[in-house]
Amino acid sequence: MKIVPLIQFGLGGVGRALVRRVLDANDDFEWRYGIRFLYVALSDSRGAAVAAEGFSYAQLMHMLTVKASGGSLADSEWGYKRGELTDLVDLAGTEDAIVIDVTASDETVDALLLALERGYGAALANKKPLTGPYRTFRHLTASGRCRYESTVGAGVPVIATLSETIIPSHDPVHHIQGCFSGTLGFLTTGLEAGRSFSQLVAEARTRGYTEPDPRDDLSGMDVARKALILARTLGWPLEMEQIPVEPLFPPEMAQGSVAEFMTALPRLDEAYAQQMAQARAQNHTLRYVARIEAGETRVGLQEVPLDSALGQLRGSDNLVAFHTQVYAETPLVLQGRGAGVDGTAAGVLADLVALARS
Amino acid sequence: MKIVPLIQFGLGGVGRALVRRVLDANDDFEWRYGIRFLYVALSDSRGAAVAAEGFSYAQLMHMLTVKASGGSLADSEWGYKRGELTDLVDLAGTEDAIVIDVTASDETVDALLLALERGYGAALANKKPLTGPYRTFRHLTASGRCRYESTVGAGVPVIATLSETIIPSHDPVHHIQGCFSGTLGFLTTGLEAGRSFSQLVAEARTRGYTEPDPRDDLSGMDVARKALILARTLGWPLEMEQIPVEPLFPPEMAQGSVAEFMTALPRLDEAYAQQMAQARAQNHTLRYVARIEAGETRVGLQEVPLDSALGQLRGSDNLVAFHTQVYAETPLVLQGRGAGVDGTAAGVLADLVALARS
Repeated sequence: MKIVPLIQFGLGGVGRALVRRVLDANDDFEWRYGIRFLYVALSDSRGAAVAAEGFSYAQLMHMLTVKASGGSLADSEWGYKRGELTDLVDLAGTEDAIVIDVTASDETVDALLLALERGYGAALANKKPLTGPYRTFRHLTASGRCRYESTVGAGVPVIATLSETIIPSHDPVHHIQGCFSGTLGFLTTGLEAGRSFSQLVAEARTRGYTEPDPRDDLSGMDVARKALILARTLGWPLEMEQIPVEPLFPPEMAQGSVAEFMTALPRLDEAYAQQMAQARAQNHTLRYVARIEAGETRVGLQEVPLDSALGQLRGSDNLVAFHTQVYAETPLVLQGRGAGVDGTAAGVLADLVALARS
Repeated sequence: MKIVPLIQFGLGGVGRALVRRVLDANDDFEWRYGIRFLYVALSDSRGAAVAAEGFSYAQLMHMLTVKASGGSLADSEWGYKRGELTDLVDLAGTEDAIVIDVTASDETVDALLLALERGYGAALANKKPLTGPYRTFRHLTASGRCRYESTVGAGVPVIATLSETIIPSHDPVHHIQGCFSGTLGFLTTGLEAGRSFSQLVAEARTRGYTEPDPRDDLSGMDVARKALILARTLGWPLEMEQIPVEPLFPPEMAQGSVAEFMTALPRLDEAYAQQMAQARAQNHTLRYVARIEAGETRVGLQEVPLDSALGQLRGSDNLVAFHTQVYAETPLVLQGRGAGVDGTAAGVLADLVALARS
């Protein structure tokens, strides 16, 4: 039986769901795979908790309670006012260890690189380290010990299908198309049903589908990051600036408060309604699509045939269609819930098992 | 760089496509993964070809030509009138070796078990060894060194999604539903379009979608084997006899020649047309569905909502929907071409790479 020390950066919604999932799974995994995960360090934005001999079930559950009620690890009895995340890496002291990044920070790169240099595995739900300079992506992924399933489509195995099915079956990729935003899926489905753009955005915001500032979703930047990760996984040395991204609002609306933005939104209603009507007249519909293709990776609103995989997609599920030499007539399609703390934590856990078993 | 000896049972359409794919991929894999595959033995139904030091590119291409023109390996200059397949296993002489089963035979089990005992990997596109007694399935899969992606959905990563995403993310499976026959997909899509059952079967036969005796497809037994493999992959100790299978013809039509069967087929047209009309009246349609659920795994024609994943499926693509705790509201869906020599060979190659790298 192999003990696998875990060092986790981030203890927000996904981080807490992951701790619970690891604890729930450990007995099963010991029997099934001969592995057992042991948390030795966890960090949040204000500090960290550290236990060289590993935290017990009860201690971890206590931390989750503290965090859920707004406290910080820094105040816990295992508190460790951190200097740097890199300090936490050397606490594990075995190559079997795995560093987990479930933050939304761009300050984890150094610690991740150090962990990989030490021979540890790394599992990321955080897109930021993978969407900086291509050079950094290469450094992180060169050893094959860095996994990042949950960065695209949460637990839907988009990255695994590319890395462990399509590439090793020597099947050339013509292009990949996908809808990678549940929020924007909700909006385009609503437009298709004849609802107004401004109402849909307001409803999505009320329901908590969007970030507090809905422009963070409507900008398309999160989708572009996912497209960049897919392109780089294919081996293309692309930089973020090379991906044209079409936001769902004009440049002049990027300024000003959220309230001003929401007030101005109805101005866009007629243009989107017309664009949808034109698409429907040709048996098409509109989807917010990431297209990954050599030389023309791009992100934006696109007309797609109603009877295509993307056209049949409804609601907030994610969908990816791989068009390859083997899947030339009809694409290889994956569809499922591409967001949410449970799905994201599930994807990270599958990565942890793959790293622990390899 | 690791040399991985290959011993391949079967050199039909899939077997030949696999040899070509391995040869095409080898340079890329050496660079990408640091592995290189080397064929040391290949068998067909009449004999085998053996080269302890490995066959060259030219020698393998020559074998493909001989086979494609109806010859046998037994007559080639490397001919080896075989005693038993088990004799071939010991030719590899290293634990890095992999035995490949791309036959449709049920006589490969002993050789596969011997290979696994020697510490080799095994990669199967052949369903037969996995669909005999559950005990044999357990023996084959206990070590984790037996992979069989192409037995269900060809290259569509159905097995990988179950084994490497859902199970290791500790996500309980409620049930799995799927359409695993391109031929029966063609038939149900045609019924939905109002065409007659007998015409559709005749056309499918003419186009080469069915076996020479279309009852081999219409019996549902091939779909049942796939359902059994999925259930067993979930850890359920199911036997074939425990799966109710509804054939698409009545028992009395199981006897007699193919010509008699084809002549009698129009008798079934009205019943299927009525069944489809009833389904359509309720916004449903008919699909030939495998349902894998604890205590009620079964295979047969089923009414499904038109707007469900199965209902939206058209033509001969395969589709699988995983209903789990994480994917509770909408399932995790995979769709793609589930047959054909290229897709099947692609799935086996991905298995070879996974075995070689682990």
